[in-house]
Amino acid sequence: MALSIRNKLSGTVSAVQPGEVMATVKTRLAGGQEITAAITREAVDELGLADGTPVSALIKSTEVALSTEPIPGISIRNQLRGEVTSVASGGAMATVKVSVDGGELTAAITRDAVDELKLTAGAQVVALIKSTEISLTTV
Amino acid sequence: MALSIRNKLSGTVSAVQPGEVMATVKTRLAGGQEITAAITREAVDELGLADGTPVSALIKSTEVALSTEPIPGISIRNQLRGEVTSVASGGAMATVKVSVDGGELTAAITRDAVDELKLTAGAQVVALIKSTEISLTTV
Amino acid sequence: MALSIRNKLSGTVSAVQPGEVMATVKTRLAGGQEITAAITREAVDELGLADGTPVSALIKSTEVALSTEPIPGISIRNQLRGEVTSVASGGAMATVKVSVDGGELTAAITRDAVDELKLTAGAQVVALIKSTEISLTTV
Repeated sequence: MALSIRNKLSGTVSAVQPGEVMATVKTRLAGGQEITAAITREAVDELGLADGTPVSALIKSTEVALSTEPIPGISIRNQLRGEVTSVASGGAMATVKVSVDGGELTAAITRDAVDELKLTAGAQVVALIKSTEISLTTV
Repeated sequence: MALSIRNKLSGTVSAVQPGEVMATVKTRLAGGQEITAAITREAVDELGLADGTPVSALIKSTEVALSTEPIPGISIRNQLRGEVTSVASGGAMATVKVSVDGGELTAAITRDAVDELKLTAGAQVVALIKSTEISLTTV
Repeated sequence: MALSIRNKLSGTVSAVQPGEVMATVKTRLAGGQEITAAITREAVDELGLADGTPVSALIKSTEVALSTEPIPGISIRNQLRGEVTSVASGGAMATVKVSVDGGELTAAITRDAVDELKLTAGAQVVALIKSTEISLTTV
């Protein structure tokens, strides 16, 4: 099975908070960080997600933002520190690969942002991912 | 009215599950598949969405992921089978057009993914769309 | 602190509607418009968001869709009128800069959409942003 979603981080569910239609699921990643996913309650029930369930977090490249420093006071729940390993620029967009504890992330951001943040191999960055952009798979 | 959102699939609301601030709405598409959208409760109320309401589902190209096979055990609620009709690659990103029952979808994914999945015209794929990425319109 | 997220609009929180795991937060922008963000309840609590809190709304370029006219009967809560100031096209994607009351937005959309909507400097457009795609920061 091949999937276009570039980012897959393995971990174990550490907390499930179910609401009526949505739920937040916290996952402890192999790298030690904890991430929060906001998914439908239906998905939690169908996948049988509970404390201890092994899962992978899937994140599309277009959902990964980058910052040169951690950002305090922000609603975005997930901030993973990493180092840029490569940058590929197109006419409008660019893909930036970032190694983080426990894996690698690809971020598809505007070329403007790459230029402004002076992103090149070796740059220290923080990858930011909104909870609603994280999917979970038990396979 | 012209809209940059590339993907519009017509159907009829088949179920509404309202929560306090969010709601999930299931829509039976013209092609026969059912898709789930997670939108605000406020939108459901304002649009008067209920069983039988004719709607169109709107999905930005950047929100469509592609897989070569259906994926079991995943929180992503929507998986539509289709066939690639064309691929346009840029320096960092690519757009892939996929014909599905009842319409056509455009997926904007990384060029890396197109290469790795060997996506060319005629390839059988599954389009994956997270519920929180689907908008609905009654017009 | 440099951030890849291109769009930042300043305002003041005008309403908070908390659910069990998600919350909707309305923000009155400097330009006068009101926008709705759907974020986790946890973020609302941690940031202490309440009526009158000064915040900035952050929106990734890939989350901004464009229309040539306002769209009635749509679940997308946020529609901001503006004027195109520039367009940069790549092979598959394009970035479009739009001046709105109180700021500037960058939209990363497909090149197909730019061509079809005939987007060039001076074009009047409406920027559409789904509530689940808006993040808030108190800094």
